[in-house]
Amino acid sequence: METWDAIRSRRNVRNYTDRRISDGDLDQILEAARLTPSSRNSQPWDFVVCTDRDQLGELAKVWAGAGHVARSAATIAIVASRTDKESVQYDLGQATMSMMLTAADLGIGSGHALVSDHDLASRILGLPEDHVCVWLVALGYPADRPLAPIADPKRRPFTDVVHRGGW
Amino acid sequence: METWDAIRSRRNVRNYTDRRISDGDLDQILEAARLTPSSRNSQPWDFVVCTDRDQLGELAKVWAGAGHVARSAATIAIVASRTDKESVQYDLGQATMSMMLTAADLGIGSGHALVSDHDLASRILGLPEDHVCVWLVALGYPADRPLAPIADPKRRPFTDVVHRGGW
Repeated sequence: METWDAIRSRRNVRNYTDRRISDGDLDQILEAARLTPSSRNSQPWDFVVCTDRDQLGELAKVWAGAGHVARSAATIAIVASRTDKESVQYDLGQATMSMMLTAADLGIGSGHALVSDHDLASRILGLPEDHVCVWLVALGYPADRPLAPIADPKRRPFTDVVHRGGW
Repeated sequence: METWDAIRSRRNVRNYTDRRISDGDLDQILEAARLTPSSRNSQPWDFVVCTDRDQLGELAKVWAGAGHVARSAATIAIVASRTDKESVQYDLGQATMSMMLTAADLGIGSGHALVSDHDLASRILGLPEDHVCVWLVALGYPADRPLAPIADPKRRPFTDVVHRGGW
């Protein structure tokens, strides 16, 4: 898919078909995450990819808004060091977007979720004590309609968001 | 450009040719930012696009590592509300990646920069008091070599970064 089509097609997808994601496609999404830039190239992330149905069901409990994780074909847990949890959010956001656009390019929907119960997430993922799972990116083929450029996205108007030369 | 090529071609570019970026291309990069997802679709951002040479020279002074902004064809200042400055970093990271990948798709290099002197940035951009410029995304055609997929990116190995099923 052309980049511009992927950008315009990505939307939050929280209902998925039963179709599994091929290992090759999943690895491509993870590779996009790996290539993401970060402050001083610190690469302050690890990615735990989960495809086991029971594990996905457990992971869905780490935040009230993470129910769709249970229905996903795969979910990628974004893990950071506990010590730099706050400061790396910008870099983690970049990695998330890389993954979501790569998924969209492959026709795969994505919906990310916050993690509020960090202890539970750590137990499910077997994380070392000095690491914490900060975000989940759920993936799967959309159950409703395929990804396609969105004609009228729900966003603030261009002229409201964009300023030229000064505020 | 195919999405996967854009993902693999994006690199930090800090030296630019004199070629200006067309209004259409600049608007496409800004539109990508506008379409970015955010927490509860709050869209906690404004974008100030600067192309004036003198203004770019001033903007380059907001952080020690922002010198390349002075040489850029255009720089997009990412502005957030002062009150939610910390919590929105993840969303701003997503918007940054959307812009950088859209730029890469157009053959335009990008290099983002932190803002440390917020007062100076506010004066240069004429920001209202309740807003703050958090990041700059400098844009321009690469002076060294065109963007192309990078064969051996400087990143942690795939098997180090990616975990399957658990840590």
